[in-house]
Amino acid sequence: MKEFELIERYFQQEKLSWCNEHVALGIGDDCAVLNVPSHQQVCISMDTLIEDVHFPKHANPFDIATRALCVTLSDLAAMGAAPLGFTLAITLPKAESNWLKDFSQGLITIAQQYQCPLVGGDTTRGPVLVISIQVHGLVAKNSALTRSGACVGDKVYVSGNLGDGAGALPIVLQDPRLKHRDSNSEMSQHFYRPLPQIKYGQSLMGVASSCLDVSDGLVQDLNHICKKSAVGIELNADSIPLSNALLQRYGQTQALQYALTGGDDYQLAYTAKHCEQGIYIGDVVAGREVSVTGCEMSGAGFQHF
Amino acid sequence: MKEFELIERYFQQEKLSWCNEHVALGIGDDCAVLNVPSHQQVCISMDTLIEDVHFPKHANPFDIATRALCVTLSDLAAMGAAPLGFTLAITLPKAESNWLKDFSQGLITIAQQYQCPLVGGDTTRGPVLVISIQVHGLVAKNSALTRSGACVGDKVYVSGNLGDGAGALPIVLQDPRLKHRDSNSEMSQHFYRPLPQIKYGQSLMGVASSCLDVSDGLVQDLNHICKKSAVGIELNADSIPLSNALLQRYGQTQALQYALTGGDDYQLAYTAKHCEQGIYIGDVVAGREVSVTGCEMSGAGFQHF
Repeated sequence: MKEFELIERYFQQEKLSWCNEHVALGIGDDCAVLNVPSHQQVCISMDTLIEDVHFPKHANPFDIATRALCVTLSDLAAMGAAPLGFTLAITLPKAESNWLKDFSQGLITIAQQYQCPLVGGDTTRGPVLVISIQVHGLVAKNSALTRSGACVGDKVYVSGNLGDGAGALPIVLQDPRLKHRDSNSEMSQHFYRPLPQIKYGQSLMGVASSCLDVSDGLVQDLNHICKKSAVGIELNADSIPLSNALLQRYGQTQALQYALTGGDDYQLAYTAKHCEQGIYIGDVVAGREVSVTGCEMSGAGFQHF
Repeated sequence: MKEFELIERYFQQEKLSWCNEHVALGIGDDCAVLNVPSHQQVCISMDTLIEDVHFPKHANPFDIATRALCVTLSDLAAMGAAPLGFTLAITLPKAESNWLKDFSQGLITIAQQYQCPLVGGDTTRGPVLVISIQVHGLVAKNSALTRSGACVGDKVYVSGNLGDGAGALPIVLQDPRLKHRDSNSEMSQHFYRPLPQIKYGQSLMGVASSCLDVSDGLVQDLNHICKKSAVGIELNADSIPLSNALLQRYGQTQALQYALTGGDDYQLAYTAKHCEQGIYIGDVVAGREVSVTGCEMSGAGFQHF
């Protein structure tokens, strides 16, 4: 299959790469062209997923696609941005029709759900499967939620349960193709289809003083807020929200470790003077880093090198 | 080295990732944030380069970086866009300081030359070196040069010599680290440092009816204009511009083959009623594809699969 055929058959289809008011020109030219309303800015973020590093090589292509797009969309959520479109650089060992069909179905599912069409990219052949996705979103001028606005006295919140992403990993590694989908599906979906908190992020505009998505582990990620905002954070271990599924499978101690250092949660963690929604887990204090009262920590989040 | 250290040391430096009026927020948050003036649109393009597919594994990291950024910037040139910034997704087998230092120097050189800062990206560890770069550029609203405006009766032009990119490849493959830089440098620079025709592209706004950059071979690339514009193109082989270096090294027949089907030139090919600058190489005619008078062709451009 030629590159152009492959793109036309699997990626350049109305359900995946539609044009809208913000996409002036999509797939098929030297560049895509995007419209940005004058009162808005563009937020962009890029994530790379590699076989047997970020997902099992033999995982379902549908699941690989949903994971790749969801984790990248999560960065838009963290800024309070509305998705506009995404680009895809995919390196494939070979061009297999069934694989590509399922992979594109996964992309379609998430693109439709978050109204984020494919607008361009590059398809190449290489020895291992590598997927880089860049998302583009719109945010009102000078309103993006960043990591640098936390103030001493603010409270620290998260948008939902933590630890499920890390708790899903052993299941996913044991059963990459999810043949036992019934028994493992609730947990494994946290890995393959984490829910980017797009609406939640938008609801924090003007409320949160800082925000990020929890991708590498709560403590490690909150340390970014500490560094960028020149503050400390005191977390209360008893307040960290844990799902019943996680507690039942792993017990309190392991579940809490996953929540604090595990990664792959894609919930939002943010600071605010006060916030009606969200789970209050700690406080912004004078200092330089995150401390946790109520437990011993081991490990320090996901290290890429 | 942790990912954050690596990014701070090699990528987050003033000479490479500076902020300007269009970069509201650069490296270091969940997203970068870009300003787009109200009378402009954003052009984006993404290219992937893989070791031993798009460049020799043992090439100088400086050269790999310049090639990766130049070939992607060339897509902005083809739209007539001005560079705004780029993102980099790099997958590395290991984090070697010397390699990263030279690689970032290559990026700095081109980023400075084209005033295109690094604004974000992702750094991951994987079994092979994979580089995906996305460039972002600005263009006046509804003025981008596309592939779809060619009309019967237009002339076809190129911005400069063709075939040098393909002619450079055997040299580069024989001597990946360019130890014999003196004797091979002129030719190999076409491979490692093709010149994105940014100013040239901008000068074609309002002049060219269609435009693209020649990356996969002149004939194959012009066929995209034929398809998108629903026209044919007749090229005159005698008019194709060939460098003396190419002619001396390979002779007329091989040089012309490289020019027609070789790829990696990154010159602009465009159509216009009339254009003062540029080299006139053929005509837009009724039809569906490219034909060449004055030679026999073999091969059909670079196939990615």
